[in-house]
Amino acid sequence: MHVLITGAAGMLGRKLTKRLVEVGTLRGRPIERIDLVDIVETPSEGSICAARVGDICEPGVAAELLRPVPDVIFHLAGVVSGEAEANFDKGMAVNVGGTRALFDALRLAEGTPRVVFTSSIAVFGAPFPDPIPDDFHLTPLTSYGTQKMIAEALLADYSRRGFFDGVGIRLPTISVRPGVPNAAASGFFSGIIREPLAGTPAMLPVAREVRHSHASPRTAIGYMIHAAEIDSDLLGARRNLTMPGVSVTVGEQIEALARVGGPAAAALIVESPDPTIAAIVAGWPERFDTQRALELGFTPDASYDAVIRAYLDDDVASD
Amino acid sequence: MHVLITGAAGMLGRKLTKRLVEVGTLRGRPIERIDLVDIVETPSEGSICAARVGDICEPGVAAELLRPVPDVIFHLAGVVSGEAEANFDKGMAVNVGGTRALFDALRLAEGTPRVVFTSSIAVFGAPFPDPIPDDFHLTPLTSYGTQKMIAEALLADYSRRGFFDGVGIRLPTISVRPGVPNAAASGFFSGIIREPLAGTPAMLPVAREVRHSHASPRTAIGYMIHAAEIDSDLLGARRNLTMPGVSVTVGEQIEALARVGGPAAAALIVESPDPTIAAIVAGWPERFDTQRALELGFTPDASYDAVIRAYLDDDVASD
Repeated sequence: MHVLITGAAGMLGRKLTKRLVEVGTLRGRPIERIDLVDIVETPSEGSICAARVGDICEPGVAAELLRPVPDVIFHLAGVVSGEAEANFDKGMAVNVGGTRALFDALRLAEGTPRVVFTSSIAVFGAPFPDPIPDDFHLTPLTSYGTQKMIAEALLADYSRRGFFDGVGIRLPTISVRPGVPNAAASGFFSGIIREPLAGTPAMLPVAREVRHSHASPRTAIGYMIHAAEIDSDLLGARRNLTMPGVSVTVGEQIEALARVGGPAAAALIVESPDPTIAAIVAGWPERFDTQRALELGFTPDASYDAVIRAYLDDDVASD
Repeated sequence: MHVLITGAAGMLGRKLTKRLVEVGTLRGRPIERIDLVDIVETPSEGSICAARVGDICEPGVAAELLRPVPDVIFHLAGVVSGEAEANFDKGMAVNVGGTRALFDALRLAEGTPRVVFTSSIAVFGAPFPDPIPDDFHLTPLTSYGTQKMIAEALLADYSRRGFFDGVGIRLPTISVRPGVPNAAASGFFSGIIREPLAGTPAMLPVAREVRHSHASPRTAIGYMIHAAEIDSDLLGARRNLTMPGVSVTVGEQIEALARVGGPAAAALIVESPDPTIAAIVAGWPERFDTQRALELGFTPDASYDAVIRAYLDDDVASD
């Protein structure tokens, strides 16, 4: 089993690599080689990993990554939401151009490897029904969401034509993200758990009634591996799936924090209304009915308490 | 009022030009200039028309068409369904690449002209609910439909960002198409009306129970002009609209033919089952609930009888 991961140096790329090395098999076969590519250095997770710095947007790079063609490709590389909105050209170049460079290289290469593409619930845009069904149309309200939608469309058509065997998974917001606070509008969803657990205050820019859908990094990695392993015949032509999430209000997140981390942690949250962030978040989906993904065996976190415990186990205990 | 039409030499482009010249105004202003561009020669419809041969896929051509920037652009240019399926590279180059060349030239030019883009119900793919609602997801089963979907996504995002003011209209099958039979799988929907009205037999490759959605060329031109004139604030971020059609079975088409053209015409239809065509057509949508377009004032043909009469008035009487 030969695996390629693009965007391997990112938080999810590194956790995916670590999990694959730990488990040692994929699709029932021993993993012999994991190629890691990113535009920055990727730390190695062991002897089966081969990391290289490269930009799939540059001519020839994608084709070179396919000599030989891996059995499974996890295409995680991309420009994040805020950057794609601030720098339109870069977002298009990386999220559409880079994806197309990889897909076209696959089209011209031998074989039909499984390609797992990490899309996002940013392909959806308000107004929404509650819950949002699997057959709801994509009306993104950001360039990032638009670019993910285009990549999904290409993945489905390239799969239909037999150029490769693609599965797109729309990830919910990932929380609790480890590390330092970032500038993303969604950052507080992780911050209000992560900072209090570290004993520092966290700003809450929105009302406690705000509802949102979450998956822990551990569960997101589980989705990727399951997407690499499922029988794609079960998908038919509809290759892109909304992943299940734990739908909770911010208030319910804080209640879970009090249960798992103690009331002292929950007391470190400081209400600090930010109308700009509140307006952005108001356009985001709250809750999905992800019947297809559930039937296909994608298993969400059991509760938001479980999300917090996964963070403590995977990211705090190991520090 | 300065208008640009891409794909102007096609059937719809020529009818649109003729209609604009006849009406003489658009958005309440006299039309002073209509630029016509196509990769083949476009016959002129009068002194306000300026035709040129050009390919918007070639570097610089789109930018040149925007000096000065027209007030309204009808973007009709594209590779048709059968060709996009047979020649993947060409379909991507024209339907995605050409559209993006035009959109990017608009992004870099002054002003925010109205752009009317002719999409297609090929963005939808079976299985469907009946009728298909406005918020049903796009799951095209052809490369043509995929390419139209990508162009729609770009149109919505470029409009949201203020690069131009776009409206995408998903046209149903156009019947009765004038001219000679073509090789399209949908060709028989027009052929079974057009050939008998000309006194010649027509093959019917599918069962009379097959249901499909139609618009006359006259109505399709009406949709384009209405899309150029509506207040785009009413659309919000959802810039792409499914156009209403007359949903009839093939049997109902033939009954209408008997009423409008006489029983002798209807007797010229020869049942000639073609499993290949029947299988393709089985994946196509049958009926839409186009509430948004109806509320926005897009008016379909009154009946399939009216579709046939429009053909006789517009294409047979004028021959």
